[in-house]
Amino acid sequence: MMSVIVIGTGLIGTSVGLALGQRGVAVYLSDHDLEQARTAAALGAGTDERPTKPVDLAIVAAPPAHVAAALADAMRRGIARGYLDVASIKGGPRRELEVLDLDLTSYIGSHPMSGREELSPPAASGDLFEGHPWVLTPTRDTDTKVLNLALELVSHCRALPVVMDADAHDRAVALVSHMPHLMSSMVSARLQHAEEAAVRLCGPGIRDVTRIAASDPRMCIDSLSANPGPVADLLSDVSADLDETVLALRALQSSDKAERRVGADSIEGMLRRGNSGQVRVPGKHGATPSTYETVTVLIDDQPGQLTRIFADAGAAGVNIEDVRIEHATGQQTGLVQLMVEPRGMSVLSTALRSRGWALQERFVPARLLGSRFRCRAS
Amino acid sequence: MMSVIVIGTGLIGTSVGLALGQRGVAVYLSDHDLEQARTAAALGAGTDERPTKPVDLAIVAAPPAHVAAALADAMRRGIARGYLDVASIKGGPRRELEVLDLDLTSYIGSHPMSGREELSPPAASGDLFEGHPWVLTPTRDTDTKVLNLALELVSHCRALPVVMDADAHDRAVALVSHMPHLMSSMVSARLQHAEEAAVRLCGPGIRDVTRIAASDPRMCIDSLSANPGPVADLLSDVSADLDETVLALRALQSSDKAERRVGADSIEGMLRRGNSGQVRVPGKHGATPSTYETVTVLIDDQPGQLTRIFADAGAAGVNIEDVRIEHATGQQTGLVQLMVEPRGMSVLSTALRSRGWALQERFVPARLLGSRFRCRAS
Repeated sequence: MMSVIVIGTGLIGTSVGLALGQRGVAVYLSDHDLEQARTAAALGAGTDERPTKPVDLAIVAAPPAHVAAALADAMRRGIARGYLDVASIKGGPRRELEVLDLDLTSYIGSHPMSGREELSPPAASGDLFEGHPWVLTPTRDTDTKVLNLALELVSHCRALPVVMDADAHDRAVALVSHMPHLMSSMVSARLQHAEEAAVRLCGPGIRDVTRIAASDPRMCIDSLSANPGPVADLLSDVSADLDETVLALRALQSSDKAERRVGADSIEGMLRRGNSGQVRVPGKHGATPSTYETVTVLIDDQPGQLTRIFADAGAAGVNIEDVRIEHATGQQTGLVQLMVEPRGMSVLSTALRSRGWALQERFVPARLLGSRFRCRAS
Repeated sequence: MMSVIVIGTGLIGTSVGLALGQRGVAVYLSDHDLEQARTAAALGAGTDERPTKPVDLAIVAAPPAHVAAALADAMRRGIARGYLDVASIKGGPRRELEVLDLDLTSYIGSHPMSGREELSPPAASGDLFEGHPWVLTPTRDTDTKVLNLALELVSHCRALPVVMDADAHDRAVALVSHMPHLMSSMVSARLQHAEEAAVRLCGPGIRDVTRIAASDPRMCIDSLSANPGPVADLLSDVSADLDETVLALRALQSSDKAERRVGADSIEGMLRRGNSGQVRVPGKHGATPSTYETVTVLIDDQPGQLTRIFADAGAAGVNIEDVRIEHATGQQTGLVQLMVEPRGMSVLSTALRSRGWALQERFVPARLLGSRFRCRAS
């Protein structure tokens, strides 16, 4: 792949241009808004001049609603050997193209999942895609040369190619992104008018559940509008579980013991299905985090505490696999959980203690743990 | 406070005993299961002998269903000056006591929120409560001396006392703990039978939303059984939002533009209410994390990478306020986000670059960000 044209120089288009430029590919930038293309060029994403001959790949980075028209226009003008789009939804654009009487062997759909939008305002960057899945949705008619151009693009962007059917992709994105986002927002909405004292009791659990509800609604509406069916189907499934759980909770208020039993069983069944689903969410490299041991350090929140602790952990020569920090509400203290391989645990604990850190003591006699809450009044 | 009796030596009772023992309070341990009391004594939580005279405070740490009976028994025997329980639900036990014709001026309800159960299997520990809220639910009849004994207990356990009405507490716990847990489980349940390719697309968003669904269902059932009403009320509110959102998504599928507009407005309204609720969840010391700047470091996942990066950050002399690690699914790479005060950002970036770390480049021209996705096909 020697040359590409990026059509649409927003966040994704500019980032693709930056990544490809760094790998020596000639990048032509094109945008309805000429000034936007100039800005992308000024950032180093390519040139805003027109190519003088067909390029290898035309990359359409327009919003979902405009993707099919932009692709059709580019294909009719014959400006490239292959055509690819990066819209977050894949079924709709393909169906729009199919009715346009075009040769689709030179087209491949794709969706780079940078995930950046969930955590912080994104900005164009050559490494935006690094380490993230990049879905490709070829059909049986897709020319192998075009698939290989797409794979080369993904490789240059240091992303992980995942091949899927277009509609399966849309259902998957509804499952792992749109549905959880909407549910997070609905949980968060309950806090809007909550009493101040109640909000003070928030712990790490609700903090995690509500985090993605902070996202910009306009971005979310754009992708939901292109994928309403699969999302509605999933929400209907949640709704069925929800209604059953409300009935089960009402049963728990019954004076009839058998009815309470039925309620408890229903809720326990739902929680167990939740357990089974949760373990499928990949942690580090698909491994479950439970393979690590945790060393918990108490810190008072003086400047430099966190920095010192990592320096000391580094000096102990133990590899820290993951880290979690828990801040106590309204308190100048916190807990740092360092996840390490089981064999590194005692080395790290000893080293940190010898350097004066207060570790959370954990007596874990199996009996005590197993008989939790089995105690009775004496 | 010179002496206490802990009735029920499970996780909470044993942890209270350990904390008070460390502060020089004489702790008597009592349990229906004598061997369990002996184990707690062997762990250093106190003595399993009987007190020879009334103690200052009787701390009932039995499960919610047994709390009222254990309190009534202790009060009738007059074994203490004050009586306190640590059950996770406060309205029910109080109402059970009220019908028993006891003098409740010497009783105060309480709920230590260690939050530990949400993240990892808990174990008895003297610092289990450190930095966490500990709710106290006195009434206007509660003796001030008893309130002060409770405050002394909370202080010895280094927790943060929060005074609330018993029923307000139960509604608050339903809001910040039970409801989010159930919703997390319902989201997770959708993944149970999902295709493997779909699961590979999971990013940090769904990982956060589903984390607490990993909890042990039996623990959750116990506390839900004691608090079904407030939880059912909240779930009904979520259900109303959910049904409205499903209708709005169906409207987005309409061929009628005005109908699509109504659907989009409905969803946007819900997302904005989610935004408003989410900002109320306290972050570090109640501050929003957005007051920090983020330095993002790309790591390939060789042993020692994480340890080295923290050692290098420490050497740069910049205080790291918070840290987030994002692992790419199935890839040997990851991103480490270091949150620092704005003025420390360039110092840290320069120091890390000079030590050979690859930082995620962030060109953030306001124009580009603001015009995100405004691009059109050219």
